[in-house]
Amino acid sequence: MDRPSNILPSDGIVSQLRDIVGPEHVITDIDALENYAHDETPGYSAMPALAVKPASTAEVAAVMKLAHGHAVPVTPRGGGTSLSAGAVPVLGGIVLSLERMNRIRDIDQANLMAVVEPGVVHGELDKALAQAGLFFPPDPVSLDSCTIGGNIAENAGGPRAMKYGVTKNYVTGLEVVLCDGTVMRLGGKLLKNVTGYDLIDLIVGSEGTLAVVTEATIRVLPRPGEIIDLLIPLDSVEQASLFAQSVIAAGFLPAVIEFMEGEVVRTVGEYLKRQAPFSDANAHLIVELDGSDKAQMRIQYDRVGEMALRAGARDVAVGQSAADRERIWEVRRKIGEALKSEAAIIAREDLVVPRNRIPELIRSLQTCARNYKATLFAFGHLGDGNIHADVGIRGRREPKERPADPWVMQVRREMYRITVDLGGTITAEHGVGLSKIDFITLALDKTAIDKMKHIKRIFDPANLLNPGKMFP
Amino acid sequence: MDRPSNILPSDGIVSQLRDIVGPEHVITDIDALENYAHDETPGYSAMPALAVKPASTAEVAAVMKLAHGHAVPVTPRGGGTSLSAGAVPVLGGIVLSLERMNRIRDIDQANLMAVVEPGVVHGELDKALAQAGLFFPPDPVSLDSCTIGGNIAENAGGPRAMKYGVTKNYVTGLEVVLCDGTVMRLGGKLLKNVTGYDLIDLIVGSEGTLAVVTEATIRVLPRPGEIIDLLIPLDSVEQASLFAQSVIAAGFLPAVIEFMEGEVVRTVGEYLKRQAPFSDANAHLIVELDGSDKAQMRIQYDRVGEMALRAGARDVAVGQSAADRERIWEVRRKIGEALKSEAAIIAREDLVVPRNRIPELIRSLQTCARNYKATLFAFGHLGDGNIHADVGIRGRREPKERPADPWVMQVRREMYRITVDLGGTITAEHGVGLSKIDFITLALDKTAIDKMKHIKRIFDPANLLNPGKMFP
Repeated sequence: MDRPSNILPSDGIVSQLRDIVGPEHVITDIDALENYAHDETPGYSAMPALAVKPASTAEVAAVMKLAHGHAVPVTPRGGGTSLSAGAVPVLGGIVLSLERMNRIRDIDQANLMAVVEPGVVHGELDKALAQAGLFFPPDPVSLDSCTIGGNIAENAGGPRAMKYGVTKNYVTGLEVVLCDGTVMRLGGKLLKNVTGYDLIDLIVGSEGTLAVVTEATIRVLPRPGEIIDLLIPLDSVEQASLFAQSVIAAGFLPAVIEFMEGEVVRTVGEYLKRQAPFSDANAHLIVELDGSDKAQMRIQYDRVGEMALRAGARDVAVGQSAADRERIWEVRRKIGEALKSEAAIIAREDLVVPRNRIPELIRSLQTCARNYKATLFAFGHLGDGNIHADVGIRGRREPKERPADPWVMQVRREMYRITVDLGGTITAEHGVGLSKIDFITLALDKTAIDKMKHIKRIFDPANLLNPGKMFP
Repeated sequence: MDRPSNILPSDGIVSQLRDIVGPEHVITDIDALENYAHDETPGYSAMPALAVKPASTAEVAAVMKLAHGHAVPVTPRGGGTSLSAGAVPVLGGIVLSLERMNRIRDIDQANLMAVVEPGVVHGELDKALAQAGLFFPPDPVSLDSCTIGGNIAENAGGPRAMKYGVTKNYVTGLEVVLCDGTVMRLGGKLLKNVTGYDLIDLIVGSEGTLAVVTEATIRVLPRPGEIIDLLIPLDSVEQASLFAQSVIAAGFLPAVIEFMEGEVVRTVGEYLKRQAPFSDANAHLIVELDGSDKAQMRIQYDRVGEMALRAGARDVAVGQSAADRERIWEVRRKIGEALKSEAAIIAREDLVVPRNRIPELIRSLQTCARNYKATLFAFGHLGDGNIHADVGIRGRREPKERPADPWVMQVRREMYRITVDLGGTITAEHGVGLSKIDFITLALDKTAIDKMKHIKRIFDPANLLNPGKMFP
């Protein structure tokens, strides 16, 4: 853990911050502050000088104005679940935690819209929407703790993105606070809007570097009444990829086509101390179908199941009840803890390529990992070409290496090169943050980076808003 | 028609342009040039000094570099179907017509992607995709003549947007030429991508003011095998709006819920010299369902039909064959020519409000039109809250008034105020262009306009790319 940064607000600022948000919402205690020094990215942390927890747009604006006046860096923070060290206050200063702005302001049944504060936890929103028969489709795996503000900052995706798209496809309005405390409102409960440039999509996915989101208007959908999961073990990644393509080409649109490579299935088996069924099959798929009509759903899953068997599936297990579905997802859900327990994970990547290049991607990444005496653990969202590629060293539990160690950086650089050479890019949904900052030039046109830096300067000329992120 | 602008390239430039694109692709003849002086927005035109028709990215880059060096304005042009005067070269200079860059470079079945040049006519792309069993969902009504480049510049929508979204939801990669001739590539055949700021969505909908699109990678979908149209006459706009909301809330997702107010239906009847069925009903809806499975489709249209009758529909006419479907769409398709023939149209607006505010919007707009002794003709996309509101003076055929006449501007300003007061905005899919430039401050936050102008300056510091558009 690094010591607090040298960019420190003076005592005068601290007392002004206490006036703005209330003394109990300014955190300066060193132990309490450690919670705000890191997110879920292994190996990255930096101590802030303090953390503040505003409860309203006006308070956020006042904090930003004060910080701006004193040139203090501000790192906005949602649930702290970033996997690109996006919430790490790398230059110290103030962590602006939106955790207290957690109200759902409006659930609008007639327009299928909701208005939420940024600190609303994804899972809490889901519960409230469920009571109204609605749902918010983006489904990052961290949904029990991640916030809507964080989802917006990262343009979060998830398994359901193949059918429903990502966060930006659901944000139709924003209220944001700019670096100097100015409040700016964009859009509304509108499904079409071409009035001026699309600043909403510019801010969504900007990782808190352009503005602090204080309210979002989001599209929601009627909650599908029926969900069916199919667990499909296949012999190879190639087979799995061709099957997924054939399902999509036939006009079926599963909510999810989730993938686990054999190595991952077997590792979860070791961790759970019982073999998963068909654990010698090298590619397990979970196909999730959703809809509102039982009869229609049955037609669909019969056909998809037939296609799977024709494509060489060893079996098709069908889960319709909540309990059966949970069993189908068990291995997938345990991947995180299993990998942590069975190997020292040195890289957690979220690579994306054109859907049909996934078999090549995985083959090349396996070779790459092997060359460094490491193992590739590949799983993720086959339906949209987005694969989580964790690299670990089996048998070792504590990562001796920090992600920034030179040989780890070398492995990651090779992985990114392989991905970009296949027409892909280095981050599909986790963001650039701090952890990919040295690799952005592999994936982006030099001119594009230049334009992005200029845009950053327009919104934040003094580089105070989540500084040290995204661009080298 | 205004005379050629005083911003004229010198003869030296003309000969260099001839060297770049070939002499036959530089148009200086005054009669031929008149085609490039206007688009489909009534009342707006301006003569360019010349038009050039490059055939490649390299030629576009060379033209831009030359124009930039001599500070000559360049107005990019697709099919010339803009309804916001977006393609009118208001400061003269060069019209850069992309009509010769009309190749479909790739239709990628495995990834459901296509790579196209900007001058591809939407309808031609649709034909090529149909042969591969695919389709590109955005469906501007001008699809027989509009181009994909124009669709991207305007972020075009259309009736199907309620199910499928708008153009920006389908663009995953762009090659663009910047004002100084630099070529910039963004994205690729990728369904998820959070590497850096979203410059693609910034350029989509930027009306040719930031960059010239020279290639686009677009998502396509399996073409639905079955399409069924229902024609549903209801007694009032309120009834129609509540029915549409109930269909959506029940989890049905029609491709289209198109709406025609009674005045429009009757006017088309007068034009066709035969009454449309149920022409005394004040709201006609067309609900289009699409899918790949006959049995599923039948379940759906039965239920939607029942819901319509319960909501007070006078009748539900079902069109399944191409001929029957064409008959259902006939009145809708004839609206444009009927209104032109039966009234002097002084305003053609594409307003958008939260879906449930449409009845209020139409009532208020009717009153507003009546106050000026004009008639409101309302039709459009009820499913996504986007209503085309034409205002005309019955019995007069040639519009004596130009759109810029003060009383017309006054009517339009009132219409926009009404829309914004209902939580809406002034343009859903036509763009700001030239025709709404004086009204943008009604709909956008001052700070937002300021940021947009800064972004324009980053991309085009000398204001040479489609100058005089979008911002006052």
